[in-house]
Amino acid sequence: MITLTTAGESHGKGLVAVLEGLPAGLTVDMGAINARLAVRASGYGRGARQTIERDEAEILSGVRNRVTLGSPVTVFLCNRDYENWEACMAPEGCDVSVRKLTGVRPGHADYAGMKKFGQSDARNVLERASARETAVRVAAGEICRQLLSVLGVSVSGYVRAVGAVEDGMEYDFSAIAGERSAVLGMMDPALERKACAFIDACAAEGDTCGGIVELRVLGLKAGFGSCMTYREKLDARLAAALMSVQAVKGVETGLGFGAARRRGSEVHDELFPAEGGCMRRTNRAGGIEGGMSNGEELVFRAAMKPIPTLKRGLNTVDAATGKPVRAAAERSDVCAVLACETVCEAALAIELASVVSERLGGDTVEELKSRYEALA
Amino acid sequence: MITLTTAGESHGKGLVAVLEGLPAGLTVDMGAINARLAVRASGYGRGARQTIERDEAEILSGVRNRVTLGSPVTVFLCNRDYENWEACMAPEGCDVSVRKLTGVRPGHADYAGMKKFGQSDARNVLERASARETAVRVAAGEICRQLLSVLGVSVSGYVRAVGAVEDGMEYDFSAIAGERSAVLGMMDPALERKACAFIDACAAEGDTCGGIVELRVLGLKAGFGSCMTYREKLDARLAAALMSVQAVKGVETGLGFGAARRRGSEVHDELFPAEGGCMRRTNRAGGIEGGMSNGEELVFRAAMKPIPTLKRGLNTVDAATGKPVRAAAERSDVCAVLACETVCEAALAIELASVVSERLGGDTVEELKSRYEALA
Amino acid sequence: MITLTTAGESHGKGLVAVLEGLPAGLTVDMGAINARLAVRASGYGRGARQTIERDEAEILSGVRNRVTLGSPVTVFLCNRDYENWEACMAPEGCDVSVRKLTGVRPGHADYAGMKKFGQSDARNVLERASARETAVRVAAGEICRQLLSVLGVSVSGYVRAVGAVEDGMEYDFSAIAGERSAVLGMMDPALERKACAFIDACAAEGDTCGGIVELRVLGLKAGFGSCMTYREKLDARLAAALMSVQAVKGVETGLGFGAARRRGSEVHDELFPAEGGCMRRTNRAGGIEGGMSNGEELVFRAAMKPIPTLKRGLNTVDAATGKPVRAAAERSDVCAVLACETVCEAALAIELASVVSERLGGDTVEELKSRYEALA
Amino acid sequence: MITLTTAGESHGKGLVAVLEGLPAGLTVDMGAINARLAVRASGYGRGARQTIERDEAEILSGVRNRVTLGSPVTVFLCNRDYENWEACMAPEGCDVSVRKLTGVRPGHADYAGMKKFGQSDARNVLERASARETAVRVAAGEICRQLLSVLGVSVSGYVRAVGAVEDGMEYDFSAIAGERSAVLGMMDPALERKACAFIDACAAEGDTCGGIVELRVLGLKAGFGSCMTYREKLDARLAAALMSVQAVKGVETGLGFGAARRRGSEVHDELFPAEGGCMRRTNRAGGIEGGMSNGEELVFRAAMKPIPTLKRGLNTVDAATGKPVRAAAERSDVCAVLACETVCEAALAIELASVVSERLGGDTVEELKSRYEALA
Repeated sequence: MITLTTAGESHGKGLVAVLEGLPAGLTVDMGAINARLAVRASGYGRGARQTIERDEAEILSGVRNRVTLGSPVTVFLCNRDYENWEACMAPEGCDVSVRKLTGVRPGHADYAGMKKFGQSDARNVLERASARETAVRVAAGEICRQLLSVLGVSVSGYVRAVGAVEDGMEYDFSAIAGERSAVLGMMDPALERKACAFIDACAAEGDTCGGIVELRVLGLKAGFGSCMTYREKLDARLAAALMSVQAVKGVETGLGFGAARRRGSEVHDELFPAEGGCMRRTNRAGGIEGGMSNGEELVFRAAMKPIPTLKRGLNTVDAATGKPVRAAAERSDVCAVLACETVCEAALAIELASVVSERLGGDTVEELKSRYEALA
Repeated sequence: MITLTTAGESHGKGLVAVLEGLPAGLTVDMGAINARLAVRASGYGRGARQTIERDEAEILSGVRNRVTLGSPVTVFLCNRDYENWEACMAPEGCDVSVRKLTGVRPGHADYAGMKKFGQSDARNVLERASARETAVRVAAGEICRQLLSVLGVSVSGYVRAVGAVEDGMEYDFSAIAGERSAVLGMMDPALERKACAFIDACAAEGDTCGGIVELRVLGLKAGFGSCMTYREKLDARLAAALMSVQAVKGVETGLGFGAARRRGSEVHDELFPAEGGCMRRTNRAGGIEGGMSNGEELVFRAAMKPIPTLKRGLNTVDAATGKPVRAAAERSDVCAVLACETVCEAALAIELASVVSERLGGDTVEELKSRYEALA
Repeated sequence: MITLTTAGESHGKGLVAVLEGLPAGLTVDMGAINARLAVRASGYGRGARQTIERDEAEILSGVRNRVTLGSPVTVFLCNRDYENWEACMAPEGCDVSVRKLTGVRPGHADYAGMKKFGQSDARNVLERASARETAVRVAAGEICRQLLSVLGVSVSGYVRAVGAVEDGMEYDFSAIAGERSAVLGMMDPALERKACAFIDACAAEGDTCGGIVELRVLGLKAGFGSCMTYREKLDARLAAALMSVQAVKGVETGLGFGAARRRGSEVHDELFPAEGGCMRRTNRAGGIEGGMSNGEELVFRAAMKPIPTLKRGLNTVDAATGKPVRAAAERSDVCAVLACETVCEAALAIELASVVSERLGGDTVEELKSRYEALA
Repeated sequence: MITLTTAGESHGKGLVAVLEGLPAGLTVDMGAINARLAVRASGYGRGARQTIERDEAEILSGVRNRVTLGSPVTVFLCNRDYENWEACMAPEGCDVSVRKLTGVRPGHADYAGMKKFGQSDARNVLERASARETAVRVAAGEICRQLLSVLGVSVSGYVRAVGAVEDGMEYDFSAIAGERSAVLGMMDPALERKACAFIDACAAEGDTCGGIVELRVLGLKAGFGSCMTYREKLDARLAAALMSVQAVKGVETGLGFGAARRRGSEVHDELFPAEGGCMRRTNRAGGIEGGMSNGEELVFRAAMKPIPTLKRGLNTVDAATGKPVRAAAERSDVCAVLACETVCEAALAIELASVVSERLGGDTVEELKSRYEALA
């Protein structure tokens, strides 16, 4: 079983990811990890911080000469800005009265976290709750993707909607994977231009926006996940993975909510005889039936809420005084849907790699490969 | 930590649920469990089997004189029909050539399960994959709900849509909980009549339909779940619970997918000063910020696909011959959205009880209660 | 991953075991399960209850026509005596003032359990803490042993000591497995006669005794468990399994505590060239190096304390009155080391099957078999 | 629940520990962590490496101004020797033909690990299997000990035996904790001198030795662990923790194996009336009955085998050639029982902190404290 543990504060020394259960013998492409981190920091509508910081992953353990050993792999992402924060963040001792935040920000973890952890300073909550954590998930996710790729399984995706600008097309990823735009990660250039205009409009009003991302998995054989216990259901596990991404408020697979609105005859994917077995002409199930992959492409969508930090400031209350204040705007992204898409791909790849390794077992990449090939 | 293990085949001896981690001292209301099972079997559009079978839960362990001991609680649901199936289902020996099913049914676990488990008879897959399993989750869920209720936390819900007949209202459950109709579980009688008509239309054509259910949790204090690790996020855990329910294809919380379409200023719930702290005028977040409950009502919606067994039969392939056939219709429900709603409530209650017991710890109900009351 | 969940009170309706993660296609030998249960109830020094009750396992789920389906397997062991206890034990309602026990029994869970679960009646604790629970672990363990046996892995054992009567021989189980006596499970008839005499002496004085059991696993290839994380270490996992058996107070592998007393040159198993690789002339490591099986026989020993219920009654305190009393003797075994050995075999088989299934993955017995055969 | 994840190779960049589930508000004493690391590196009979390297823990996350945030705490231990190993160990690229080890060392993970992970170079196995990993467990264990200490629970221990030089005394740790010698960690100076002489004798012959350590926990209330499921038993969990320490081959609690040799009347701890309840005059159970703490001192012993790397070299086989060779002696400790004791204390503290946090729940130290105080 592959498991990921992450740690690290947004303005602390850095972020840590420990991946356990990777087989020995996987060649890790560091360049691809850093490229993925660059995509996470990109996208029309991102603020200043992203352009300054360029994340570079460092591997601290589990890899020798670019190849995994079968031991836990640790990835470290240095926070390049730490020197500016050391005085108020250092574990070894610092002045915690600096950068105190008491005006709890709506849409953030501040309010609930302060109650939960008995804090009078939201800084002690937000440092970990921040989406900065997702950077190291992207790095770990890229390693998992590289493992899946050895088996012929690919994870990709695109931005389907920014605000109300939504792409209704059904794309055939087995044909066109990767042809999305670098600007916002959308497939349709005309829609993307509209989306950029919408982002500009939001920015002009000090507002923010979210969107919808679609994830695709090609090459996965039938029978991953299980119908035998509810905890093993593939859709449940992947839904949790996506919902665990900061700002995601909804997840669906296949037709998703749309399936609820149609009749059965318009939803279920009929089977037809084909060479060597059978085939389907539709994939409305999103590749999952009975909690298991059915051999078709996996299709998931996740809804990202707008970034909760608005330049114009939302109404809130100062926890120290009880007085109304405007929420501070520490970060100035207007739209981060492409980042969210990148993180969702990573989250999916991590959980899927775990599912795959549970079914295949195995201690080496060669073992996983030969077992995967032997599956029906 | 509360964990649930379920077992049992659809036409086997019965279904088993083992609930571990319940505190000692909880009075179990068996009548309420059976009432909940009756709701699960009810609803306009259900087939013949449901009216014949009336589930009655039996407790095999963990309870003495109606009170939990702190030991694992086992619930057994006898399959009343077993005598008619014993000849082809008995563990001790039977004729497995009877009731063989080789025409893999679209929308079911048949295809993937046969590949996964090396079966030539889909019976060996479908018996466990069947939604019959959810009956025992409903029983276990009712026990968890009774535990939550001791803390003042209530779980309820209603049917929001049947097919395209959708209720767009925002209901205030703190005022009206339980006022839904018994026919289909909808809140608006006029819409429910339309929904029934839609079910009739589907039935007339040998078709089926699904719908959308909405779940509500009242009385939950802030700080359940956590922003500190992605696995502990409350929304991720509850999403997995709901997605693990048979036929659910999408889950959202608060505005959900709708949040992706709005601007930040229309999504985030501002805070205002109030007696003893602060208050909100909206709950678009569905009671969760930063992966934690924020003290507002939890709101989740789940999308159920139409029942995949259509009377008119879908096109498929016979796995034994490779020839095209019509999928068999073993079961004849047209609509089971109210059942789905009941199961979703149960799934939510089980996972939420687990989350609550992790934060509170405790070995007795009294301990949980006093710790809950001491929370901020 | 194979996991076992058990439930059930000693004088309740019965005991329940749910085994999750068994592959499909395993033929379950019910006769062997019941034979194993009979051994657990046997042995010189057992009291009256054991001779009356003959446990018969019933399978409630997961098996069809004697073959596993890949779904959770439920085993039920009816408590034949329940009718005599129903009046004070029934979940549905009963008189809990009957059979109340307030004189906390030394060596039992009574004292700690009453504090933990807020009970004034030790009955509410002891019913679950009782070694009766191990019966269903024996049943589940036998199924796991049958799975291991398909791979050519056997689990066996014998009674090495009863009280101070200890067998110091090193037996070669690859040659003599199963040649132990049925009376007490010892290998040496002369020592066994001495052990029986010791049991008689204890009985005559209203006293009890324990002993030491030795477990052996033959046929396990190298590389089960792992050196890569401390939680995966095979010795740690198997030690926990054995220590979880009621009355076990110590566990060792290979030379165990004896290794601490020797020099390195007398402990480590040297390797010598052999056809097709290498061989060892000793197995002082007990088949485990670096937390992994090394291809040699696994050897574990567990120490069982004397049964804590003495006919002559130990000094204790009545929790209700605070007055000194003699502890009650509800059960009258003098020695149950053979039962303990049977349970330890089961506990070992369960955990080992879990370890094996994690490394091999797989959904069918055929898959596990071919993957096991492909291992180096 | 508190969980620890460790990573890192012996000659890699360093070791990583991530502690999840610590409550917010714990003041971390870094000096105490480094002091503990110094003890781990000390002890009569240690080799050269230990005196050169002085471990200093660095905290990378989860702590601000010396106080925990409730987020995962990462500890990093730099391998000071890495610059000398970078050329053959660097993750980013290195020459893996350097420092290749093919003569599999008896008593190490080499043989099994090479088979498991398909390696022809034992370096790829031993780097992680090495006891170097325990350094970071000591650091994490010290943090857990500091948490326990806030509740008034202390974890300590001493070296009870070195080789056959064994201390048979029963020490009263509530009176004398900490009075052990710094030379070898033994309590009795005369015995310690004998132990040192034994170590000298082993060293003179190029041999090694092990020993026995005893662990004590004072201040733990009754009811930790559980009698209700076998996985929750306190003795099983702590036994696994100790057995997971490199070189430990046996674990016992209370009288342990000695209990198997006595009669029941000589083993079980009778209760007598006392002010405010009852008391015991003996603690042969080692503070655990029915899988739960009973309010007495916890007593565990672990047996450490002799260090498997002997200066004189054991017979073995070169995996590359199949020829007999002498095992290499990369490390030259003769005795490391004091180090083992330090690691065992840490392993115990980590698992115990986890057990404690499961029962108490809680997000802040204050919450844990008040809940602990409220326990019976």
